[in-house]
Amino acid sequence: MKDTVFELQADVYAYGSVVGEKEHQGPLGNLFDMHDEDDKFGQRTWEQAESEMQRRALGIALKKWGRDASALGALFAGDLLNQCVGSAYGLIDYHVPYFGLYGACSTAALGLMLGATMVSAGQVRYAAAVTSSHNTAAERQYRTPVEYGAQRTPTAQWTVTGASAFILGKCDRTESSHARVSQAMPGIPIEMGIRDAANMGAAMAPAAVDTLERYLAVTGKAPEDFDAIVTGDLGWEGSAIFCDLLHADGIEVDGKHTDCGAMIFSRHTQDTHAGGSGCGCSGVVMSAYFLPKLATGEIKDMLLIGTGAMMSPDALKQGRNIPAIGHLVRLKRGM
Amino acid sequence: MKDTVFELQADVYAYGSVVGEKEHQGPLGNLFDMHDEDDKFGQRTWEQAESEMQRRALGIALKKWGRDASALGALFAGDLLNQCVGSAYGLIDYHVPYFGLYGACSTAALGLMLGATMVSAGQVRYAAAVTSSHNTAAERQYRTPVEYGAQRTPTAQWTVTGASAFILGKCDRTESSHARVSQAMPGIPIEMGIRDAANMGAAMAPAAVDTLERYLAVTGKAPEDFDAIVTGDLGWEGSAIFCDLLHADGIEVDGKHTDCGAMIFSRHTQDTHAGGSGCGCSGVVMSAYFLPKLATGEIKDMLLIGTGAMMSPDALKQGRNIPAIGHLVRLKRGM
Repeated sequence: MKDTVFELQADVYAYGSVVGEKEHQGPLGNLFDMHDEDDKFGQRTWEQAESEMQRRALGIALKKWGRDASALGALFAGDLLNQCVGSAYGLIDYHVPYFGLYGACSTAALGLMLGATMVSAGQVRYAAAVTSSHNTAAERQYRTPVEYGAQRTPTAQWTVTGASAFILGKCDRTESSHARVSQAMPGIPIEMGIRDAANMGAAMAPAAVDTLERYLAVTGKAPEDFDAIVTGDLGWEGSAIFCDLLHADGIEVDGKHTDCGAMIFSRHTQDTHAGGSGCGCSGVVMSAYFLPKLATGEIKDMLLIGTGAMMSPDALKQGRNIPAIGHLVRLKRGM
Repeated sequence: MKDTVFELQADVYAYGSVVGEKEHQGPLGNLFDMHDEDDKFGQRTWEQAESEMQRRALGIALKKWGRDASALGALFAGDLLNQCVGSAYGLIDYHVPYFGLYGACSTAALGLMLGATMVSAGQVRYAAAVTSSHNTAAERQYRTPVEYGAQRTPTAQWTVTGASAFILGKCDRTESSHARVSQAMPGIPIEMGIRDAANMGAAMAPAAVDTLERYLAVTGKAPEDFDAIVTGDLGWEGSAIFCDLLHADGIEVDGKHTDCGAMIFSRHTQDTHAGGSGCGCSGVVMSAYFLPKLATGEIKDMLLIGTGAMMSPDALKQGRNIPAIGHLVRLKRGM
């Protein structure tokens, strides 16, 4: 039963993205719906700023959609903060039935998958999937407060300050959609001996490979059947490992593969070492870059593999390795 | 869309419960499948012991069911530890597609609801819902290490050391079931100004009331239509508030309401103050007490309202109130 591919009929009706200043200065900077120059979004703490980003991302998506939150039957949300408080506090004012998720950086894909499943099954007419991460909040929780000025290693990824929201509904041909979620395959947690929290790309790459290989085997598809195979977020280090592992198994993704963590920052002008990460990274890159291309038909059929490293700082201190996961969602152009 | 009730067709085929020594000494002590005298389950740390409890709870459920994990199409799991590592590490060896949840103490109900939805929709044939909490791991994460001997207030609840697993499949009349999940209603996060982490019953009671009142309004049911209305876990303090709030709205649940946190420990002989809490509490009480009664028909129709307090210690330090949620699942006798 490990190889079940979910057959889904869900449309993406709207989406929103909110980012911090560094993301705004990056290669995709002008594509995001809003940014804040001091990353605080009017709040007193980084954690509250993260919640505020989620609140605004969903508000933007609802505004684009032209309806208010009372139309939503379910919210799927999660983030990196302990007890996922970014989501709990950020979305409480919308007063919508709420499903709390934990998928680390795979949360955008996990929310898309569960939201699409719920609307496809007809349990709710519309659902939203929301996620976020905040660099300064994540640094002080996972590593050290940025004020300490701790040295980062070359394989370390930079947690994106950003939040995204997607609004999903069951395909019904009466409402025009930006994209269609047609299939999904949940990831299986695996760990390959990596316990370096400054090299999460290496921990997550095998999980992305595992899911992609299972998906291709079950569906009989090949990488060339897709316009894009997008991981989120392996960064440059993890992306190289991802391609190497696939190559070793005879699967070539050159020209098809790209990674949200490798897209959001400039490798040359922005000092982020191995690239972006964090729940918000693949969320905002999907929202700002890929979904508009699916809407215009420039991309007709793509795979998103959301990757997450599900360790805690305490678990690493206790000598555990990093369990990682890759959730796959297939998106087709909108109708 | 806030008042959607999910119509489900899911059977519970097996379940398992694992608890610590204090829970074994409580009123339900002999009903649990296994316990460990030193709460360590052979592990070196409390956190690893929590993971091991999850591993064993699922193993027990699978053994009772008579199949191995390869029959499962999905695992829904979460816990209270930061980044939900109890689940990620505890279930990794089963190699099953994995959906990480965060619902604080509502996780047992949240997992039942999502697992039942997934099998009802036919996306997977069988799914399992697993959760856990560990008193000593929770104390040092949320409050202070128990070795400090910090004084507890009378309204404080005692985090249960326990893990539960439920195995679900779509109703098909060929396999005999212990219980049937027929409906569910997801909770909406609400906060009523409570910010005392030593009085989570008060924070969670309004969320349980909100969901129950929405459910009764939509379905036209009354408390007397059910054999039991079970909250998990408000403890004695929260249960009194729950009944008072309902009474103020003209709804009487006397004789129908009971609470997993009020059942698992003896109020008179075990010093747990306001009763039990933690993801494991409602999970093991459902597994050891209510599901067997649904299996024999002693209980024919009941509501479980899993309640969760979704704050973090950091959020409380930043002056935030406690957002709470109540997820409702309706269970009927097995076929």
